[in-house]
Amino acid sequence: MHMKRKPLSVLATMIDALRTLPGIGPKSAQRIAYHLMQNDKEGAQRLGQSVLHAIQVLKHCEQCNTFTEHSICELCSDKQRDSKLLCVVEMPTDQIMLEQTLAYCGLYFILMGRLSPLNGIGPCEIYFNRLIHRATDGIVSEVVLATNFTNEGEATAHYLGQILKAQGLTVTRLARGVPVGSELEYVDAGTIARAILDRRLV
Amino acid sequence: MHMKRKPLSVLATMIDALRTLPGIGPKSAQRIAYHLMQNDKEGAQRLGQSVLHAIQVLKHCEQCNTFTEHSICELCSDKQRDSKLLCVVEMPTDQIMLEQTLAYCGLYFILMGRLSPLNGIGPCEIYFNRLIHRATDGIVSEVVLATNFTNEGEATAHYLGQILKAQGLTVTRLARGVPVGSELEYVDAGTIARAILDRRLV
Ligand SMILES: [Zn+2]
Ligand SMILES: [Zn+2]
Repeated sequence: MHMKRKPLSVLATMIDALRTLPGIGPKSAQRIAYHLMQNDKEGAQRLGQSVLHAIQVLKHCEQCNTFTEHSICELCSDKQRDSKLLCVVEMPTDQIMLEQTLAYCGLYFILMGRLSPLNGIGPCEIYFNRLIHRATDGIVSEVVLATNFTNEGEATAHYLGQILKAQGLTVTRLARGVPVGSELEYVDAGTIARAILDRRLV
Repeated sequence: MHMKRKPLSVLATMIDALRTLPGIGPKSAQRIAYHLMQNDKEGAQRLGQSVLHAIQVLKHCEQCNTFTEHSICELCSDKQRDSKLLCVVEMPTDQIMLEQTLAYCGLYFILMGRLSPLNGIGPCEIYFNRLIHRATDGIVSEVVLATNFTNEGEATAHYLGQILKAQGLTVTRLARGVPVGSELEYVDAGTIARAILDRRLV
């Protein structure tokens, strides 16, 4: 006879789903679940619906690769932006930081990661072909590499820089105003603004 | 003319819902959202569905007050348990800890909180009337107070103890094997087992 594994209760199923989230351990998952059921059913409703809605309608912007419910995101649709400048960042959060500096007026490409061979993240996983296609549209003339100043971010910038330069593009990197070894997300806007102005040829 | 607030994007709506969860700040919310969209759409689907399912079908067990999709939860339906013993705990996680000791064979009542006047949590919010009703079913003869050994947990035990004793019930408290000032959830099973055996009259 087969041993059938008992199906999880409704509560246990929810706790299980919560604990697969990054940074959420089993105890936090339990606490979140009880909190939602006990004190915030409205928040639970909002969470459940917004997550299901997101996976249903979100896709990658055809131009910058960020997540959006449109074919082309709002920023890429903005005719005020300088379409000769293309800034490459790792994550949408990096883009948000750069926008907050008000020091950059060009467009973006979001890799949704960084090269990390040890973790099986190669050029394919960071949408390399889409970036090359985007950067060689005949309008972009300078690519600003704004990946993080970590080992992986630097390696990614170096790799992308080589290939983009071979396409005849001007390739720059944010100036080293950004502290070495740090992640853009955590750097203050002033420092990043300085680094944009001081960007250097690669 | 009215200024209309721009509606949030689908992604921003999800991030917003995530950041209302206890222990999740704005940065974590972003990170979780991007992770789900980029690397784990299946997990996102599971999360969304399980949360919506939970708020739809979960209710309080008519006997012990825990969350369950049934009228009476599995543990309360277990005829092997000693129905003369009723253990009062703050949260379902505390019940799980007690069960792991294998030292307790009675039934439970889960308060879903603790008295905390400063936070507006009075007897009503910890289902006081349901506990009294449950404890005075004519079968229960001893109530084991297993609220946390924190200030609020002790005050809750004291308050409940007074009233339950006035109903003619034997009221005990877990022995002080449990370190003072600590939360049950974080105490090792051996210590809790000892404390159950040493439970004392209140
Ligand atoms: Zn875009
Ligand atoms: Zn029950």
